Amino acid sequence: MLDIQSHHTDPDYSCAYVTLTIQTGLEGHGLTFTLGRGTEIVVQAIRTLSTLVVGQVLTDIYKDFGTFWRSLTSESQLRWIGPEKGVTHLATAAIINALWDLWGKLLKKPVWQLLADLEPEQLVSCIDFRYLTNVITKDEALELLRKGKQGKEERVNKLLDVGYPCYTTQAGWLGYSNEKIRDLAQKYLDLGFTAFKLKVGKNLYDDIKRLEFVRNIIGWEKTLMVDANQVWEVQEAIDWMAQLAQFKPLWIEEPTSPDDVLGHAQISKALKPLGIGVASGEMCCNRVLFKQFLQADAIQYCQIDSARIGGVNEILSVYLMAKKLGVKVCPHAGGVGLCEMVQHLQMWDYVALSGTSEGKYIEYIDQQHEHFVNPTIVENAHYLAPRTPGYNTTFKKDAVENYEYPNGKEWQNLFEKGVFSDPRKHKS
Amino acid sequence: MLDIQSHHTDPDYSCAYVTLTIQTGLEGHGLTFTLGRGTEIVVQAIRTLSTLVVGQVLTDIYKDFGTFWRSLTSESQLRWIGPEKGVTHLATAAIINALWDLWGKLLKKPVWQLLADLEPEQLVSCIDFRYLTNVITKDEALELLRKGKQGKEERVNKLLDVGYPCYTTQAGWLGYSNEKIRDLAQKYLDLGFTAFKLKVGKNLYDDIKRLEFVRNIIGWEKTLMVDANQVWEVQEAIDWMAQLAQFKPLWIEEPTSPDDVLGHAQISKALKPLGIGVASGEMCCNRVLFKQFLQADAIQYCQIDSARIGGVNEILSVYLMAKKLGVKVCPHAGGVGLCEMVQHLQMWDYVALSGTSEGKYIEYIDQQHEHFVNPTIVENAHYLAPRTPGYNTTFKKDAVENYEYPNGKEWQNLFEKGVFSDPRKHKS
Repeated sequence: MLDIQSHHTDPDYSCAYVTLTIQTGLEGHGLTFTLGRGTEIVVQAIRTLSTLVVGQVLTDIYKDFGTFWRSLTSESQLRWIGPEKGVTHLATAAIINALWDLWGKLLKKPVWQLLADLEPEQLVSCIDFRYLTNVITKDEALELLRKGKQGKEERVNKLLDVGYPCYTTQAGWLGYSNEKIRDLAQKYLDLGFTAFKLKVGKNLYDDIKRLEFVRNIIGWEKTLMVDANQVWEVQEAIDWMAQLAQFKPLWIEEPTSPDDVLGHAQISKALKPLGIGVASGEMCCNRVLFKQFLQADAIQYCQIDSARIGGVNEILSVYLMAKKLGVKVCPHAGGVGLCEMVQHLQMWDYVALSGTSEGKYIEYIDQQHEHFVNPTIVENAHYLAPRTPGYNTTFKKDAVENYEYPNGKEWQNLFEKGVFSDPRKHKS
Repeated sequence: MLDIQSHHTDPDYSCAYVTLTIQTGLEGHGLTFTLGRGTEIVVQAIRTLSTLVVGQVLTDIYKDFGTFWRSLTSESQLRWIGPEKGVTHLATAAIINALWDLWGKLLKKPVWQLLADLEPEQLVSCIDFRYLTNVITKDEALELLRKGKQGKEERVNKLLDVGYPCYTTQAGWLGYSNEKIRDLAQKYLDLGFTAFKLKVGKNLYDDIKRLEFVRNIIGWEKTLMVDANQVWEVQEAIDWMAQLAQFKPLWIEEPTSPDDVLGHAQISKALKPLGIGVASGEMCCNRVLFKQFLQADAIQYCQIDSARIGGVNEILSVYLMAKKLGVKVCPHAGGVGLCEMVQHLQMWDYVALSGTSEGKYIEYIDQQHEHFVNPTIVENAHYLAPRTPGYNTTFKKDAVENYEYPNGKEWQNLFEKGVFSDPRKHKS
């Protein structure tokens, strides 16, 4: 892979994939993205959680989805090994996402439209407000949703017409030659992109040279973001970014630990006079952390991730808090299936909650889409609104046949070549 | 079990148990505590992490233990499914704890003494300071440790003489009859205990009655703590505790989500004028969260847990930050093996870091000790200093034979009785 990040230097893009089947034979598919090793741990967690799902009546789940969600996240014994974070929460996300895909397919609506059509009462019934009420109550959420519906039809039409704006990370990986950066930046300029994200944080001198180089290509009217992938200490982030402020980045993404609310707040405060915002969220573990990031003005760009925290239900609560506190949501995407999923959430927010896409973008990375039956479509730097039922998370049959671990054909090749050893041969 | 807590209503006290064997045949044992379901997920994570441990040279590990620790917690692909939290971090704790048990056995010292005898330079080399440096640097830690050594011998002698003070949670579970509470409170009074913790948070009227009842038995000179096990929203915690302030509790433990630094800070600020401190930490996920709890004056009693966060190495950093910021550490214990482990950490802190046990206690719960070769010994409401090498985490042979899942004898009985189904029969 070409994705050279500071902490995740050799990702083998993978996912844990859940298929829920109902009696009619209809299937819902959900996934959580992983980097390779460790997927087997998430799969074990999904197996354990599946005992709470298999055999349940689907209409009962959707009637009181928030309660069902809590039955997974607060199972009396499993809760201890979270709670609501890490492996068990990734597993929850995969299951919950499959339920939303299924719901969309049952109602024959893409998930963004399903969400936008839900009555505010039913939408809030999907959310567990536990530990959030000092920032948002159910009643406040209801009010935001009722107001959000005003002018909805017009926005739906606009969305169906032009889609939702996105930015590209494609030209910005560390380790690219100047030639490659220039070619990619030009390619995405030609495709209509107006916002570009670059990785930074390995070497200050190189960062300055690269940002200078890219600004020369894209000009000063275009938007530039930078992303440090958690590589800095708090003070280091502040000092480093002071040196990069001359290139007018819109935001610095993941300057430090994804758990450090107070650290991000300190960085935000220092960078605000320089006109630089702070973005984080792709590895934020749950709604309680998001609540604090938003409360403390620790981030000015909230990057929800569709495969982390406990799936759609919990992410809805983050959008509601961001709306209340006036923070822009700009979803993280890429990986496997993240673009396919986040587009729905951001489009729901546009048509039925925040009512605007002004100054907001979905991340776009052009990889791993070919495995999906209904992949993300980006045209003129906009995600086009999905029109097929569900959450766009169904893999093509041959993607599963080729890549399922350890039975897929590609794995057999790798085992035969000796690149990996076949785990099935080591079974006792 | 009689442990009726708000979130964990039916714990089946369990653990994931790691045995490390070196070429001489010497074994180190480490564990992380679990509540039953989900242990299999932690075990899977330990299996995955074990590939990073098996075959390593032990002297290399101890020479630069912080770097080795980071190799587990920041493995380039596994990091994604944490980082440093939940299942993978519990698994890390079990492995790391086994390494400390082994180190103690190699040097023929109990771990508290091993820690206290380490030169400050070597002790800080065990710690990963990443993301901590805005609160504590390696140099500041070194200075604290050098100062902490002054008067050490005298404190070692005192420790060997009288042990370290503890409090009891035994009389305070919800759902006990008044008679049972009275008998237990009297029993622990007679055993010399001066501090008692009660569970609260289910019903305000019941809490008032129970606290009144217990104060009448133990009197007003004794120390009383209360524990809500994360059951409240932020404002609810403040309002509820205002009603219980009349009983002069030293602290309210886990008033809300273990992830909510700002929520705890808000509660602390409101309860300070009432003379009530806030305690939390048993489910705090890592040093970065602890850092913020300490920074924000969100807790006045820091309850490290020996089986959570990434084992001894990471806990050392929490003690150092607590020392610098003047917060009292009062470890969480109970479960399986937690008393056995935390005693070492708190005794090290006493003899070689903070230099005082004034106003501090280790929790003590009198259960599950019988399974250990060298169980915790409490006399006159003090943990006696362990004198056997290692971390006191080695199970008796028959404990393993009886309780190992799914092969242990007790499990065979349960399978035969039909209480649980035998997972080995469902293997494909």
